Amino acid sequence: MSPDSTPTDAEAACFEAGIKFGTLYHQFAGTPVSLESAPSLATAIGESIENQPHCTTVTVDVREDELAAALEAGPADYTELTGRFLEVEIVVDYEGCEVVTRMAMEDGYPLMRLEEVHGRE
Amino acid sequence: MSPDSTPTDAEAACFEAGIKFGTLYHQFAGTPVSLESAPSLATAIGESIENQPHCTTVTVDVREDELAAALEAGPADYTELTGRFLEVEIVVDYEGCEVVTRMAMEDGYPLMRLEEVHGRE
Amino acid sequence: MSPDSTPTDAEAACFEAGIKFGTLYHQFAGTPVSLESAPSLATAIGESIENQPHCTTVTVDVREDELAAALEAGPADYTELTGRFLEVEIVVDYEGCEVVTRMAMEDGYPLMRLEEVHGRE
Amino acid sequence: MSPDSTPTDAEAACFEAGIKFGTLYHQFAGTPVSLESAPSLATAIGESIENQPHCTTVTVDVREDELAAALEAGPADYTELTGRFLEVEIVVDYEGCEVVTRMAMEDGYPLMRLEEVHGRE
Repeated sequence: MSPDSTPTDAEAACFEAGIKFGTLYHQFAGTPVSLESAPSLATAIGESIENQPHCTTVTVDVREDELAAALEAGPADYTELTGRFLEVEIVVDYEGCEVVTRMAMEDGYPLMRLEEVHGRE
Repeated sequence: MSPDSTPTDAEAACFEAGIKFGTLYHQFAGTPVSLESAPSLATAIGESIENQPHCTTVTVDVREDELAAALEAGPADYTELTGRFLEVEIVVDYEGCEVVTRMAMEDGYPLMRLEEVHGRE
Repeated sequence: MSPDSTPTDAEAACFEAGIKFGTLYHQFAGTPVSLESAPSLATAIGESIENQPHCTTVTVDVREDELAAALEAGPADYTELTGRFLEVEIVVDYEGCEVVTRMAMEDGYPLMRLEEVHGRE
Repeated sequence: MSPDSTPTDAEAACFEAGIKFGTLYHQFAGTPVSLESAPSLATAIGESIENQPHCTTVTVDVREDELAAALEAGPADYTELTGRFLEVEIVVDYEGCEVVTRMAMEDGYPLMRLEEVHGRE
């Protein structure tokens, strides 16, 4: 580990992973989404975030049961995309350090979590 | 035409069309985009906006030549989506009034234009 | 009124007003907001949208009671901005036609409404 | 340092800092901004991001010279917020680990950088 305040490669990898999650959520939250349009939105989210530097894979699943339940409860056949409708895994590789991150529901809120860090020196 | 300040159906149709354009632009501007991911983004944009009420069709074309030129000029193989990379047509139908709107470049800026209004009483 | 499909000034004014509403909602929905930060966000939203062409005034009120209730029900002291926390009035003037629009809650959903059109020829 | 793939507190702090930067950029990029409205936008951006967990301070400066130059070159008195108009410092504290991050222009592009990590065990 770095003896001073200089970031390690593993720390930089975690910073990069966080950027991807913040980007994903705040770029796409609020997008009009229905059961029909959810698959194309999930594909576009994944492919757009994978453009960002050091991003290995972005896996986006729309929780269709949750979306269907929300649409049944509301007056329209579409709603706004928000965290409760998403399951996301992002893997980042920075200088040989691989970081695995996930967004999962916890206590009714979407929580972005740093799960694994591999390849520290 | 309405004799007072009450909106006509044609005016309401134009308001609805404007909402779709403002939504489209400000939801998706800033999205990371490359030549590879542009098609999935264009599909997702169109399908998401078509969810909105009274929206008949949304046609989104990415101007690939313009995008390729921007990527050649910059240091990365992706950039942020902005109006110069898009051509969009949105058709709205509200109570029998059909409105055709387009976003086109004019003097180097993306301009949203109300082009045709059909079916006024 | 225009005898053909060419838009009238009043229709163009309504289109412009719609753009402002779509912009406002989809630019700022999802912003982290608390009771403390709500006033600065409301100010910034109003001033940013007033930059757009033909926009006379944008009045943004945060529904603080609604926001306080949502925060009490949740685990955090902030939440994401969404339509239920906002009351907005936008006035547009295009070539002498003044259009008044509002976002109000209706059946639990934020509805953007074209309310008045003045100055038709 | 953690002997396995479990994240350290410092790594978690870096992940949190990245989330804030991705949020800040992709929530607010595209916002209409002029010289007059830039101060209120800067204030709102800072106060909104400071709501997020573990966020100590967010300092947002609008580069007014750069904004003024862009407005002189263009046809309008406002433009879209993008990275070249911003200087941002975000400080995060997670379980006693303090992380300092900045967005600065480099080779004409806004680069988010992890600069200092303090308080590792």
